[in-house]
Amino acid sequence: MADSLASLTERLRQFAAERDWDRFHTPKNLAMALTGEAGELAAEFQWLTEAESGALEPDRLERVRQEAGDVLLYLVRLADRAGFDLVAAAHTKIDLNARRYPAGQVRGSARKYTEY
Amino acid sequence: MADSLASLTERLRQFAAERDWDRFHTPKNLAMALTGEAGELAAEFQWLTEAESGALEPDRLERVRQEAGDVLLYLVRLADRAGFDLVAAAHTKIDLNARRYPAGQVRGSARKYTEY
Amino acid sequence: MADSLASLTERLRQFAAERDWDRFHTPKNLAMALTGEAGELAAEFQWLTEAESGALEPDRLERVRQEAGDVLLYLVRLADRAGFDLVAAAHTKIDLNARRYPAGQVRGSARKYTEY
Amino acid sequence: MADSLASLTERLRQFAAERDWDRFHTPKNLAMALTGEAGELAAEFQWLTEAESGALEPDRLERVRQEAGDVLLYLVRLADRAGFDLVAAAHTKIDLNARRYPAGQVRGSARKYTEY
Repeated sequence: MADSLASLTERLRQFAAERDWDRFHTPKNLAMALTGEAGELAAEFQWLTEAESGALEPDRLERVRQEAGDVLLYLVRLADRAGFDLVAAAHTKIDLNARRYPAGQVRGSARKYTEY
Repeated sequence: MADSLASLTERLRQFAAERDWDRFHTPKNLAMALTGEAGELAAEFQWLTEAESGALEPDRLERVRQEAGDVLLYLVRLADRAGFDLVAAAHTKIDLNARRYPAGQVRGSARKYTEY
Repeated sequence: MADSLASLTERLRQFAAERDWDRFHTPKNLAMALTGEAGELAAEFQWLTEAESGALEPDRLERVRQEAGDVLLYLVRLADRAGFDLVAAAHTKIDLNARRYPAGQVRGSARKYTEY
Repeated sequence: MADSLASLTERLRQFAAERDWDRFHTPKNLAMALTGEAGELAAEFQWLTEAESGALEPDRLERVRQEAGDVLLYLVRLADRAGFDLVAAAHTKIDLNARRYPAGQVRGSARKYTEY
């Protein structure tokens, strides 16, 4: 329940309706807004080493958390406006990836992975 | 239940563990991979009009669905590796946005919105 | 001369050297920083109609100009650090695209284009 | 001469005119297409270490070169359609950054930089 996307979807619908923003929220515009938020998320990590990125200082962790929240909001809103089930889509992709990258074949192979 | 991120998180943990991919999945790398998927999602819309983006043909809708799924997977994985609750982060942002954009003040104002 | 990338490349080398920033400027980090700036550029357009985007107000045009400048800076720096000629790379891509999209076949065909 | 953006701009104008693609090339659409190419560029680096990204294998270097070329093409085309001088914009940003990050103050300070 606490991690339900249904309640997020509903809150975003109300938020947009109260502000008359549905006309801005076309799938095209939402996809574009999502790239902006993804870029802000990436910017938090760009000069960190990989090790530093795994042990974030509190201030940066909070910014990362909020940028990730922004990405999720646009993603949920896009799925709602385009009419598909976001979590089902993600499960579909895990199924596909499981076939593309059989555990027995790619295990421990950085090369295989980095060529992906 | 059907839209639970907890089950996605768990599947992705197993997926990475079976392939020994945790060492690639630093928050920095996951944020970078997310921008790649966000870019692929945007690419599906780049030459469409806004109206066309609101009535996608079946083939494109399926590609959009899968690209959105990819974005969600990296986002869920990033939140798991960085140690925060993704859906709670999104709710935090809605709360913040509700204060930044009071419905009574921005309603019907494209200008206010486009300046955001 | 005024549009030379060689002078930009040289200024950026000096800029990084004076600040001891070369160690941050790995190709990986520069590519990541570039996605951040590309996202900021996209954010300027996300709620505009296509028509509005073709007739930008002075304030927004100046922001677009500066964001585009940021993208170019990271792109020039990346090419310098990875060791390739950026403008030659762009000409290579035009040559490839000319073969992929023969003018006689795709002219006036939105469908062809939007499927790209 | 070899690195002139003026000749790229001119080639892209002809390329679009011959295909009747100007109507797709609004600044909004070009900015969106640019984020897609930036994402593809980032994807080449996402699982590499920073050290690996500094010594790319020939196949990957060629892909990086071509993706960077794509980013430049959309950037040049966007500047042309929006009506500004791209290289001048980049020089403007270096001037601004020189004031924001005085060499004497930030030299050798990773902290200062990573907080940027």
